[in-house]
Amino acid sequence: MIVLGIDPGTAITGYGLVREENHQAVALAYGTITTPSDLPLPDRLQQLQRELAAIIAQHRPDQAAVEQLFFNKNVRTALAVGHARGVVLLTLAQASVSIYEYTPLAVKLAVTGSGRADKAQVQQMVTLLLNLSQIPKPDDVADALAIAICHLHSARLTTLT
Amino acid sequence: MIVLGIDPGTAITGYGLVREENHQAVALAYGTITTPSDLPLPDRLQQLQRELAAIIAQHRPDQAAVEQLFFNKNVRTALAVGHARGVVLLTLAQASVSIYEYTPLAVKLAVTGSGRADKAQVQQMVTLLLNLSQIPKPDDVADALAIAICHLHSARLTTLT
Repeated sequence: MIVLGIDPGTAITGYGLVREENHQAVALAYGTITTPSDLPLPDRLQQLQRELAAIIAQHRPDQAAVEQLFFNKNVRTALAVGHARGVVLLTLAQASVSIYEYTPLAVKLAVTGSGRADKAQVQQMVTLLLNLSQIPKPDDVADALAIAICHLHSARLTTLT
Repeated sequence: MIVLGIDPGTAITGYGLVREENHQAVALAYGTITTPSDLPLPDRLQQLQRELAAIIAQHRPDQAAVEQLFFNKNVRTALAVGHARGVVLLTLAQASVSIYEYTPLAVKLAVTGSGRADKAQVQQMVTLLLNLSQIPKPDDVADALAIAICHLHSARLTTLT
């Protein structure tokens, strides 16, 4: 099973494709979709949609994982994330990729074993678990890979029961 | 010129298509796109995208008008509106419909001549200006028609100068 983790944003959307091979999570591809800030918002959303659709077409993920909505951000941020998140969810639905949501706490727990881990600890564990030579940059990519790993663990638990 | 006014929402998106004929604004079509609350969000967004694309294909608007982002709502509302608004902007961009934004104040001014008009006054003026037999319901439809009228007025001003 190939899992696509996504951290949506209008300026930067992080993505990471992860598969389990011999009980080891393997990163197939990861990176960012960035859109220029001088483009009008509708054009930026269209570019996000196009590039995400191309990534899905290339890697054919079975399932996708995104961070659950949380409400402690400010209103301006929420609106901006909402635009990108709406387009991401739409694009996944159009490609018939089923979508799972995880809270930030669930992601921390799944990746580090502790709900109190900080960002640096999560990034170190992502690097270790995927056997990468260095911490994936920017943060959006590391976050997307963490969410994908979280879903792999969760899917494995579900399969075992 | 046919103007499509839109009031985006995940549960209800209001739309209104307006054209100017002999210095009189005429409503060509208006209504809502509603999505069932028991559907998963990605499916609701996909339904919104499909129905809006069908409306655009049927009526071929030249330009679209939506309310400008404002930040006095709460975070939960902003995220929900953001999802729908992102999908609406994407769908318009995909159909090559150019998009214009107006503040709530600009809409009130354009429709009633007063920035202090209340919702009921705006709805009465929309009904009067479009020569409708009754106030369009629900509020989302009246709001969408008001934004479309606002853009017609604004486009007329631009053309005259």
